[in-house]
Amino acid sequence: VRLKFTIAYDGAGFAGWQSQAGGNTVQDLLEAAAGRIAGRPVAIHGSGRTDAGVHALGQSAHADVPTLRMGPRDWKRALNACLPAAIRVMRAERAAADFHARFDATGKIYRYHICTAEVLPPHAFRRAWHVPQPIDRARLDRALDLFVGRHDFTPFSANRGKPVDDPVREIRSITTARSGGLLRITFEGGGFLYKMVRMLTAAAVRVARGREEEDWIRALLAGGAGRSHHVAPADGLFLVRVLYR
Amino acid sequence: VRLKFTIAYDGAGFAGWQSQAGGNTVQDLLEAAAGRIAGRPVAIHGSGRTDAGVHALGQSAHADVPTLRMGPRDWKRALNACLPAAIRVMRAERAAADFHARFDATGKIYRYHICTAEVLPPHAFRRAWHVPQPIDRARLDRALDLFVGRHDFTPFSANRGKPVDDPVREIRSITTARSGGLLRITFEGGGFLYKMVRMLTAAAVRVARGREEEDWIRALLAGGAGRSHHVAPADGLFLVRVLYR
Repeated sequence: VRLKFTIAYDGAGFAGWQSQAGGNTVQDLLEAAAGRIAGRPVAIHGSGRTDAGVHALGQSAHADVPTLRMGPRDWKRALNACLPAAIRVMRAERAAADFHARFDATGKIYRYHICTAEVLPPHAFRRAWHVPQPIDRARLDRALDLFVGRHDFTPFSANRGKPVDDPVREIRSITTARSGGLLRITFEGGGFLYKMVRMLTAAAVRVARGREEEDWIRALLAGGAGRSHHVAPADGLFLVRVLYR
Repeated sequence: VRLKFTIAYDGAGFAGWQSQAGGNTVQDLLEAAAGRIAGRPVAIHGSGRTDAGVHALGQSAHADVPTLRMGPRDWKRALNACLPAAIRVMRAERAAADFHARFDATGKIYRYHICTAEVLPPHAFRRAWHVPQPIDRARLDRALDLFVGRHDFTPFSANRGKPVDDPVREIRSITTARSGGLLRITFEGGGFLYKMVRMLTAAAVRVARGREEEDWIRALLAGGAGRSHHVAPADGLFLVRVLYR
């Protein structure tokens, strides 16, 4: 049976989503838990990677599991019983036999948290980027608006080794909200390149702090002006939701 | 010079506020940091204890420190540089020579977090009490209302060894708010007995879940009916603020 899982994790203690030799990734721990329950190896296919330190409120994944007379709800409980508290299966549901968490995704929502208080409160530690300098909200919003739409986002992405087939991505909306010293930037788009959300955030914050002008972003986006070299820390990034049709 | 500090901490990793032989308390770590800066022992006097696992957004404390040509702001920076990220001095200010963090306090605000979602999100782990059963909000509010006012709260407190001189406390207000699966109960009062906020919370939740009726609380509050034996976990409790005239 194919199941679709909605997974939340506190990224602070893990080496990212993607399985790797050193272990301690979210995928490794999920596969270990599912394998222990199934009594045979189970592959967990995520909607995409998240880097070390990045959080998820709603990562998506699918897996083919033996039923063992267990419904999706039983699988959810059994997995949570085997997982550390920093990784939780928030939902499990039956999926079509050809459902694919990565290829069927039509978009993603990411949120980036910036704490602008002079002192980073302990409860925001590893859950926000600490920028204890004034951020001009109007300048931030104008800078972020430049990214909305379809662009070749290569200048705001990091190289992952092999080149990307098509680096054009569509950002459908970027919104900002502030509450109690925390600034939240929410990105919704069809897809994102490697480190793109963190690089868009870092660039917009540079403009908001007056270190660059909007034209710097315009020139980079237009192409031929190289890449931005600024990446906001992983700590502040949350994968909120993966969208499907 | 006497300084007043406003201190926040993530209680998950510490053995409470109060200094103890085993160390690893918030007071121990603050005194160690202040002592290293001052070059001699510095006593930090808190407004009161918090138990292991209890959090603070605004604990208060005072200390007499050598000036070393350092203002309160410099002391704040220096202390934060020596402390783990899970303990932060949010504010430091000059206080009167006879200011006392404990004896001058006129009240405290505590908040208790309850997560009612079926699965506890990783980001609420150790920061909320997980009650994955329906909580009747109207019943909860009515039960909590019984505690407002001046009462002998002995039946809703734990014994700390020596008896309390005067177990009468005044609760000025209790309010509840819900947002996204998290229920917050805010208590404001002149003072609280040992484990009292956690015991009031546990009792009100028992009534809200239909395991007891309001009369159970009324009888206990009236005295002569013994003590409640239910204590909500430390994880969900936050000392929000200490009030001064």
